[in-house]
Amino acid sequence: MNNKILGSDNLVLKRLFNLDTHTYEEGALSVKTKEMLGLVASLVLRCDDCVKYHLQKCHALNTTSEELFEILAVANIVGGTIVIPHTRRAVEFWEDLGKT
Amino acid sequence: MNNKILGSDNLVLKRLFNLDTHTYEEGALSVKTKEMLGLVASLVLRCDDCVKYHLQKCHALNTTSEELFEILAVANIVGGTIVIPHTRRAVEFWEDLGKT
Amino acid sequence: MNNKILGSDNLVLKRLFNLDTHTYEEGALSVKTKEMLGLVASLVLRCDDCVKYHLQKCHALNTTSEELFEILAVANIVGGTIVIPHTRRAVEFWEDLGKT
Amino acid sequence: MNNKILGSDNLVLKRLFNLDTHTYEEGALSVKTKEMLGLVASLVLRCDDCVKYHLQKCHALNTTSEELFEILAVANIVGGTIVIPHTRRAVEFWEDLGKT
Amino acid sequence: MNNKILGSDNLVLKRLFNLDTHTYEEGALSVKTKEMLGLVASLVLRCDDCVKYHLQKCHALNTTSEELFEILAVANIVGGTIVIPHTRRAVEFWEDLGKT
Amino acid sequence: MNNKILGSDNLVLKRLFNLDTHTYEEGALSVKTKEMLGLVASLVLRCDDCVKYHLQKCHALNTTSEELFEILAVANIVGGTIVIPHTRRAVEFWEDLGKT
Repeated sequence: MNNKILGSDNLVLKRLFNLDTHTYEEGALSVKTKEMLGLVASLVLRCDDCVKYHLQKCHALNTTSEELFEILAVANIVGGTIVIPHTRRAVEFWEDLGKT
Repeated sequence: MNNKILGSDNLVLKRLFNLDTHTYEEGALSVKTKEMLGLVASLVLRCDDCVKYHLQKCHALNTTSEELFEILAVANIVGGTIVIPHTRRAVEFWEDLGKT
Repeated sequence: MNNKILGSDNLVLKRLFNLDTHTYEEGALSVKTKEMLGLVASLVLRCDDCVKYHLQKCHALNTTSEELFEILAVANIVGGTIVIPHTRRAVEFWEDLGKT
Repeated sequence: MNNKILGSDNLVLKRLFNLDTHTYEEGALSVKTKEMLGLVASLVLRCDDCVKYHLQKCHALNTTSEELFEILAVANIVGGTIVIPHTRRAVEFWEDLGKT
Repeated sequence: MNNKILGSDNLVLKRLFNLDTHTYEEGALSVKTKEMLGLVASLVLRCDDCVKYHLQKCHALNTTSEELFEILAVANIVGGTIVIPHTRRAVEFWEDLGKT
Repeated sequence: MNNKILGSDNLVLKRLFNLDTHTYEEGALSVKTKEMLGLVASLVLRCDDCVKYHLQKCHALNTTSEELFEILAVANIVGGTIVIPHTRRAVEFWEDLGKT
């Protein structure tokens, strides 16, 4: 579906998608730290698809389960118990990642 | 399900639903412009059901795909990349509308 | 899935879950009033899973359908028509509760 | 400023403001319960002006400070620590109401 | 302050700011329609500074007060009464624009 | 004002405030990483007071300006241009911290 959007003639969307990729590149902060920042932001904004995307990245970057739970803790404390359903789905997806 | 809600004795909900309909009627702004306003508001608030509703209206009012992508661009710039998953689903639904 | 989260070694999440339970205990306000507060908060924050949880509690505490619709009215007026899809799903779930 | 808005020829805004007043009238739920619902909804949506409005109503309806703190507790648990600054301002405003 | 941000070496922020400008340029939709879209999005997301920015643009593009109130109506219906305080401040700012 | 809230008899609020402090303690993730997570979460949820709190912590933990701008970039990409006004105020506050 991203291809459909990128295949359109809309330059703003194309450039925003491109910029999104650059945002998480190695810089003063490591890629791993940036992905954790993206994850916690996605959690408090309660976007399951975004959470899954960053969980995949965090998993590939060898984030440990202990680290994950500390990110989840920050998200739940800052964002409150409305983050709990997203936390459940995040933990479930994280377990699936570990099995593959 | 709307009928269930409208069939209840709750006057506030009935009147709000009624008012919702009036909001998008022709006025100083055209119906088409108002539906585009409703669409971008639904996108940044990330309500898929509301997005689908306004996409149907926009489609019936001959909004072009080029116009749609510009609305999506505003929504993604103002609301950020957390709007992307809703953008994907909007584009998918828009394509389905074109086929019917 | 809560067991998975509670089974982790993350004390912050465990304590937050525990605190969540204490929040809705009888106090200066009745359990029923507190569950209604939790319900309206979940509605305006548009969290369907949280809404279902509080609907179950409200149902078990003998909240009437008339009372429910007044809570829904407050949520829709304060939170706007983006709450409507969640209202529909809440009414549908409420009916299912009545049949069991 | 409300008069400016009500003085305009926009029927939708006039009716919505009117509907807002009806929402909190005595019904299956008491006016006091409804104002508490409006307060908790305003807190989790973090609207200081709305919080102040409902605090005034709650104060006039003899809500006790113990009851207020239980409403604040629900709001902070559901909405998280980002509600804390609004909680602080709510408590400050509540104290001012007690002095008048 | 924008100069401070643009003066930093952060390419992502610079490009996002640049992209923001492109978003509202004439395209399939007119500049005026796009500014109205930006305004309604800013209203439902309750960002006063963003609202003011788009009000200035809308005013410069000869948006009438009747059109403005219809945009405000969409925002208040979609976003609910929590948008009212922002609506008040928008109307106040709009009046100030008319006097200059 | 925190003292007023902590001085009340509300156990839920007291424990939540206490839990908030524990969340950012050294664990699998460093205190610095956790404060950066708290900062980005506060930015996308657009809570200026929370942003200032975490900026102070980040500054005390020797976060560099380059690192700060990368956190701001993530927040603006994920949360969109409605985060810009909060970004401006964050940069302004950060400069004040550097002068003290």
